[in-house]
Amino acid sequence: MAKKENTYKSALHEQDGIEPPKILNVNSAKFIKAKRKKQPSVDDLVSGITSGNITDLSRAITLVESTNSTHTSKAHDIITACLPHANKSVRIGITGVPGVGKSTFIEAFGIYLTGIGKKVAVLAVDPSSTLSKGSILGDKTRMEDLVKDKNAFIRPSPSGDSLGGVARKTRETIILCEAAGFDTIIIETVGVGQSETAVHSMVDFFLLLKLAGAGDELQGIKRGIIEMADAIVINKADGDNLKAAKAAKIEFKRALHLYPEKDSGWSPKVSLCSALKQQGISDIWELIQDYLKITTSKNYFELNRNDQNKFWLLQTIEERLKSNFYSSEKIKHELESQIKLVEAGKTTPFAAAEYLLNI
Amino acid sequence: MAKKENTYKSALHEQDGIEPPKILNVNSAKFIKAKRKKQPSVDDLVSGITSGNITDLSRAITLVESTNSTHTSKAHDIITACLPHANKSVRIGITGVPGVGKSTFIEAFGIYLTGIGKKVAVLAVDPSSTLSKGSILGDKTRMEDLVKDKNAFIRPSPSGDSLGGVARKTRETIILCEAAGFDTIIIETVGVGQSETAVHSMVDFFLLLKLAGAGDELQGIKRGIIEMADAIVINKADGDNLKAAKAAKIEFKRALHLYPEKDSGWSPKVSLCSALKQQGISDIWELIQDYLKITTSKNYFELNRNDQNKFWLLQTIEERLKSNFYSSEKIKHELESQIKLVEAGKTTPFAAAEYLLNI
Repeated sequence: MAKKENTYKSALHEQDGIEPPKILNVNSAKFIKAKRKKQPSVDDLVSGITSGNITDLSRAITLVESTNSTHTSKAHDIITACLPHANKSVRIGITGVPGVGKSTFIEAFGIYLTGIGKKVAVLAVDPSSTLSKGSILGDKTRMEDLVKDKNAFIRPSPSGDSLGGVARKTRETIILCEAAGFDTIIIETVGVGQSETAVHSMVDFFLLLKLAGAGDELQGIKRGIIEMADAIVINKADGDNLKAAKAAKIEFKRALHLYPEKDSGWSPKVSLCSALKQQGISDIWELIQDYLKITTSKNYFELNRNDQNKFWLLQTIEERLKSNFYSSEKIKHELESQIKLVEAGKTTPFAAAEYLLNI
Repeated sequence: MAKKENTYKSALHEQDGIEPPKILNVNSAKFIKAKRKKQPSVDDLVSGITSGNITDLSRAITLVESTNSTHTSKAHDIITACLPHANKSVRIGITGVPGVGKSTFIEAFGIYLTGIGKKVAVLAVDPSSTLSKGSILGDKTRMEDLVKDKNAFIRPSPSGDSLGGVARKTRETIILCEAAGFDTIIIETVGVGQSETAVHSMVDFFLLLKLAGAGDELQGIKRGIIEMADAIVINKADGDNLKAAKAAKIEFKRALHLYPEKDSGWSPKVSLCSALKQQGISDIWELIQDYLKITTSKNYFELNRNDQNKFWLLQTIEERLKSNFYSSEKIKHELESQIKLVEAGKTTPFAAAEYLLNI
């Protein structure tokens, strides 16, 4: 921290090109402090991030998450400068219903990874966090050992009223974390709305965490998730649960066999673990290594990231076109009337759309 | 046909309010014929359709499928006039990979249905039909008995360069068929791109046709289809295939058990049939009856149709907003450059989107 302040101070001077104006008779220490608190420059932050400074990384993420337009523009410059340093990582998405033990798993997995020399960033996508005040990763005490690990960086879900906004912030945060030297990015999500699909579209590997008991706890999970998974990990496979977990593993393996082949050429795997007892964790990492071997040799890894970039480019454009259209007061009002007419069988959805587009 | 011509002739006179002008010394029979060939009025067609006239139904569908703006506007008026007569049917989507026996199944199923007093319309959604010149339903000889059935109406897929266009035309054709008294609408689709999703969004019941051999033939099918199915019907369950079909049934039942519950409250069923030997066909109809009983009692049936209408309303708006945006020459050009910049890691998808939206 001390080192950081020094870097900061000198950077400030460098930026201004002069010493604080003594002629104004202000307390110069106070002046510097106030100014420093206010705004480190883009260059400061970029050089901080790329040299692995966590405080600067956090500050830059705060700018990414801000709605203030000055911050947004600054964030944009930082991200652009960080891009050449990004991309060298494996991005892992982790999802599962509440109660499945996501935090315990991520903590055990994260500690295993830092133990083998990895630098791990844990992010989250939870569009409901504005309302629930951060249901996931909000309470860092749930990962108390990982929080203390100097090779781990944990950041709760950005808040935002739309999934699109939250997803953009997380995607940009991934770039910053990668530029800061984190080589393993874990993105946690809870099954709310379309958030898993969004996370699936920003990771290389998608892991579904489950419990034994198969059919029963599937009720709470969104449709389509099983098909997205590159691995299904059955957690809490210990003690009395072990037998049921083994049976669930067989059942899932059989079910996965019925799914069409993935574009990646990878056949999803089913694995058992006990995050609490730290069992089966290394197997999962090995499985991800196998996945990386297969997908990089086939060039799928790179192609997939390119496709994801195109997806987010088009997705962002289309979301904005829609929000521009629907946010007009006149459209809001007329849309409601047209929906009523369609429901009453007085017009068709197509004629109604035509009408709205010609307003 | 004779009856039809009479209806037509009188309708024409009614519309004109006068006899053909003898003063012009034209052959009046020829005059009427020429005029009739050219353009029956909206009222003619609507009254023809609602009294079950198949020729008028076909003519109106041709207007729906036309790209000529006069035809489009006429089609719009006909559909609006038909709306109060529509909606009283069950709409069944049928999909399956090529070779699964869709045509044979639909013929056997259709003949069973007309045999128990139903009026059956068979439509198709196949966006590739422009290129392949109608790969499905194009060759009506594949359903030669059903074609001759006076209570059946078969119409190949409309052509069109976009799935959105084909889907719109089919949705509007459903309305016309219902107004013409068809109480069972079957919509066939082949697994091309997003066409199953489109068909799923316009039917009450979605049936996936399969063959025994489970895992193997799943390779050709698109992801997500199993989750959409209300029933999986294993066709060609006869002779030497019967044993494998029974095994496949058990395997699918087990797999379906792993899927989350459907909003409809319906648990998808697995059924065996031999379309060729006309075995197991009535079971499928009974199964659909069960489905209708459950979903109408829960009000899901109505809610689902309303949701589908809203879906198509919003979908149409959004497709148009996109096509308006992307069709600009400037955007086309700049989009390509921005994609290249994103791929080269010089900008982010979000910054690129921002740039394009501000052009």
